[in-house]
Amino acid sequence: MWYTKFGQSGDVVLSSRVRLARNLKKVPFGAKMTEKAEIKVIDECRKALPDLRYIDFSVMTDTEKQALAETHLVSPDMVQNRHKCGILTNNDCSLSIMLNEEDHIRIQVMRPGFDLRACLDVANQIDDKLEENLDIAFDEKLGYLTCCPTNLGTGLRASAMLHLPALTETGNMERLIRSLSKLGLTVRGIYGEGSKALGNIYQISNQITLGVTEDETLEKLDRIICDIVEKERSIGRELHTKNTFRLEDRLKRAYGTLTNARLLSSDETMSLVSDVRWGVNLGIIKNVNLETLSAVWYSTLPASITKAHNTQNATERDLKRAELFCEALKKERTENND
Amino acid sequence: MWYTKFGQSGDVVLSSRVRLARNLKKVPFGAKMTEKAEIKVIDECRKALPDLRYIDFSVMTDTEKQALAETHLVSPDMVQNRHKCGILTNNDCSLSIMLNEEDHIRIQVMRPGFDLRACLDVANQIDDKLEENLDIAFDEKLGYLTCCPTNLGTGLRASAMLHLPALTETGNMERLIRSLSKLGLTVRGIYGEGSKALGNIYQISNQITLGVTEDETLEKLDRIICDIVEKERSIGRELHTKNTFRLEDRLKRAYGTLTNARLLSSDETMSLVSDVRWGVNLGIIKNVNLETLSAVWYSTLPASITKAHNTQNATERDLKRAELFCEALKKERTENND
Repeated sequence: MWYTKFGQSGDVVLSSRVRLARNLKKVPFGAKMTEKAEIKVIDECRKALPDLRYIDFSVMTDTEKQALAETHLVSPDMVQNRHKCGILTNNDCSLSIMLNEEDHIRIQVMRPGFDLRACLDVANQIDDKLEENLDIAFDEKLGYLTCCPTNLGTGLRASAMLHLPALTETGNMERLIRSLSKLGLTVRGIYGEGSKALGNIYQISNQITLGVTEDETLEKLDRIICDIVEKERSIGRELHTKNTFRLEDRLKRAYGTLTNARLLSSDETMSLVSDVRWGVNLGIIKNVNLETLSAVWYSTLPASITKAHNTQNATERDLKRAELFCEALKKERTENND
Repeated sequence: MWYTKFGQSGDVVLSSRVRLARNLKKVPFGAKMTEKAEIKVIDECRKALPDLRYIDFSVMTDTEKQALAETHLVSPDMVQNRHKCGILTNNDCSLSIMLNEEDHIRIQVMRPGFDLRACLDVANQIDDKLEENLDIAFDEKLGYLTCCPTNLGTGLRASAMLHLPALTETGNMERLIRSLSKLGLTVRGIYGEGSKALGNIYQISNQITLGVTEDETLEKLDRIICDIVEKERSIGRELHTKNTFRLEDRLKRAYGTLTNARLLSSDETMSLVSDVRWGVNLGIIKNVNLETLSAVWYSTLPASITKAHNTQNATERDLKRAELFCEALKKERTENND
């Protein structure tokens, strides 16, 4: 799957995402939506994009939907959605067109590492195909019409998921979040709005969609994120130089716990994975492949682990999670003769 | 060295020790002691036991003396001793005759595991040799005369060092200590009087030396300690059965920390070694040899590590200690293909 891969600037940027919000012109949207209209949206989009696989949400359990949200294929809101809805997706799940989420159509494209441009290119191709076949709501002055006015204009939300342990450790995040806000950017936790920045992971995205072009939005985000990546790296190196033993001790202990614990809660795992990832990036921890670490981590998120292993409660999940981390990281160690 | 070996009932009893206190008849003792008398004690004992190696304390640094105390070769009091003093010892350091500690002569014999009888036999052989050559202070009514009245009579102190994590965990130790006291036994920490029971290690010894024979003392200790060993084992098994995951989690995490930490303080190490030892005994932790664990632990005690590696401060010791544990336990793992 795309989300386990290590991309450009992958030491800091876990993934990039672009989302375009679109609505059909002749179909009511928002509160005026009817079931008939919902079915029409789904049918027309499926016809317009016949190469993509459709996943019907009305036949899925909450756990199955939650597992999709855990890998960012759908928004957390979509899991709660009781209307007729679903997604169109591709093989590696890097593309997800949510139908009847807040808007009729939300084109989402994701890439590992820092690559907003590639995301936008693919999203635009999908958008072009839709516009060829469907009548999309567009206003000369306002741009694309969306359910919520904060998306009017480009309908574009571009975001990058950053792992910022050094900036967090040194207490720099609050100030950074305030200054990004003044620049029209939003900082959220790993699962979007309202979610905590567990595991020192932050999602940085544009706030403004009206009166700017898509290119302007991306250029600005690119510039600012590049800057944050450099800051994270240099502060990380500085911390390691100044505080070598304490930092190495903490990060190596996290590895020891992750590879030996018999029970691992989801929150503790997040924090241990963050420490181990940082340790690998600083060269303190050897013989851990970050792609393996990501793969195990995603596979052990609550709904994903429940779905894959039919675990019945939190203790069973915590046991299975610890077992999977222990096995995967031991395998790495053995293959590297450590 | 004897103290790293795994002896009888070695899962619970780390070591056994017998000590006989003796004084020379025609030499003043206690507060009346003179330097001349001290030299006389040393000379006479060295002549009486020519096969043993003499270690002169007046030419040793405090660290060197402390390192001997860490392996139980001498008492902590002996380290502070500013008089002419020293010890006579054998090759594996299981025998130590302290000269001019509290008494003129303290014959100490130690064995791994539970074997007080063997200790007493060797101590008696040494005692016989001394009595053949020297005039030992003895009173028909009081028995052997000693500096402190609590040692009058047999002059015998027999003790066993027990690792009691299950009894400690379940809060049984306070009651046990009280009931042992009523039976004339004393419970102390690993370094004798006043020392804390770090690492769940307790030293159990007889209190009474007057009006009892050596055999009576040993039989009673044997019986009571056998009983404690059985209790520790059965409560350990019970805890493991009732609380499998939590206990396995805790003990395996301790192993993870001990093998991955970059800095290990002496106190934390004691507690981690205790958990790992318990984990090995319960079959939870594989591929750790308890003799290796003991050997590393003894070699990383503060004075021993300072002496062997010339560490200059606590941080250097903590670094070296972590390195030694990581290396030794990794070697075990590799040799066992884990």
